[in-house]
Amino acid sequence: MRTLKLTLAYDGTNYAGWQRQPNGMSVQQVVEEALAPLVGGTPPSIAGAGRTDAGVHALGQVASVVVDFGYPCQAVQRALNVRLPADVRTMDVSDAPLGFHARFRAVSKTYRYRLVTASVLSPFERWFVWHAPGSYDLEAMRDAAHALIGKHDFAAFQATGAMVSTTVRTLHRLDVRALDGEIILECEGDGFLRHMVRTIAGTLAEVGTGARPVESVARLVVSGDRQSVGRTAPAAGLTLVSVAY
Amino acid sequence: MRTLKLTLAYDGTNYAGWQRQPNGMSVQQVVEEALAPLVGGTPPSIAGAGRTDAGVHALGQVASVVVDFGYPCQAVQRALNVRLPADVRTMDVSDAPLGFHARFRAVSKTYRYRLVTASVLSPFERWFVWHAPGSYDLEAMRDAAHALIGKHDFAAFQATGAMVSTTVRTLHRLDVRALDGEIILECEGDGFLRHMVRTIAGTLAEVGTGARPVESVARLVVSGDRQSVGRTAPAAGLTLVSVAY
Repeated sequence: MRTLKLTLAYDGTNYAGWQRQPNGMSVQQVVEEALAPLVGGTPPSIAGAGRTDAGVHALGQVASVVVDFGYPCQAVQRALNVRLPADVRTMDVSDAPLGFHARFRAVSKTYRYRLVTASVLSPFERWFVWHAPGSYDLEAMRDAAHALIGKHDFAAFQATGAMVSTTVRTLHRLDVRALDGEIILECEGDGFLRHMVRTIAGTLAEVGTGARPVESVARLVVSGDRQSVGRTAPAAGLTLVSVAY
Repeated sequence: MRTLKLTLAYDGTNYAGWQRQPNGMSVQQVVEEALAPLVGGTPPSIAGAGRTDAGVHALGQVASVVVDFGYPCQAVQRALNVRLPADVRTMDVSDAPLGFHARFRAVSKTYRYRLVTASVLSPFERWFVWHAPGSYDLEAMRDAAHALIGKHDFAAFQATGAMVSTTVRTLHRLDVRALDGEIILECEGDGFLRHMVRTIAGTLAEVGTGARPVESVARLVVSGDRQSVGRTAPAAGLTLVSVAY
């Protein structure tokens, strides 16, 4: 037996998200199906580090799979890319220690959220950003972001109806940068609740436009009040950048 | 009467090219139809600087149109962008001198061709580049490109069957740059024959891989022999960057 670590990039526009599900095509499913011929025909079960939602993209999603073939990693990568649709690419394949699990062994994940503030959205960016034109107070957004860094209960930033054992997460970094008519949020943390990054993006955007006071953000990680949080920013703007082990 | 200069960006993937035609949707047609309500209902005829082919993109296509309304340019831009599909955007609208014609008054045009040489193509670039993985000799490509700069008969680089009065064109610039697993060709000239940039890209790529001697390229602008030229590189890699007046 052998455990492989797959690094995947995908344009999530046409997928129902990472996770296999009865309705709609998932990225997990197309990768499992591309692996099938290599393991004798039945799609193997793979584990992804981050369960990206429908329309969310990845530059460096990581998945693990247990296999029993002996093909070299490069050959596996080539075979996968021949079989995968062009919107999902295997960027790397490597051997991992037996017992490696892409989700359970992840130490941190980095997500990027892109908010285009320019009045006209480039036709080339339309599936990869949130277009919310206007003028934003970057310093206010950075102050609010600062209040979220560290170990907090992010219950307020979780999708309604989600079931997890704990909503405490540690955010190591939450950068707010401006670049050519857009604002880029980049965050790294030990784990993320469902919709957490998108809700942070929506909340910080409200701070930026002045629709929400800076101080209200610090209160959200104390109150855990989902009703007081900002809107969930659109999926298209979000990309899973990398996963660290 | 008033002549407007429209600067347009588009993702050409889903269009049959710039020029209006009976079969397939053209960029010209969607822009004319977006203008229609502003001029009383009938789509006005617009002139585009470059007749980009099916699948070719634009960052700064320029079109001219004669209108008789008095709306400010910014309002025209907004109205167009509300009506246009998201893959076509009006980046600027300005008043031009009466008699301005986007094609006849163009002094030069700049095109960019992107060739991805890395073995794996990013899913985000798949509609915007030519993926021809391999190892390329950049210096050889630059030497060959140098032979094309200046005033030459580019008959060999023209699509078969094209009918133009002269095939002499002046290429002011033809840069070959390497960047992050791709080669970018950027050329500026007083005019371009149909498929000219794509044929230059295909020919230089053959020089880069060693499939064609550097010296053969200089001979093409003397012989005008379409049979000896390189393949026409795919439309997706080409972008009309800007038009100068």
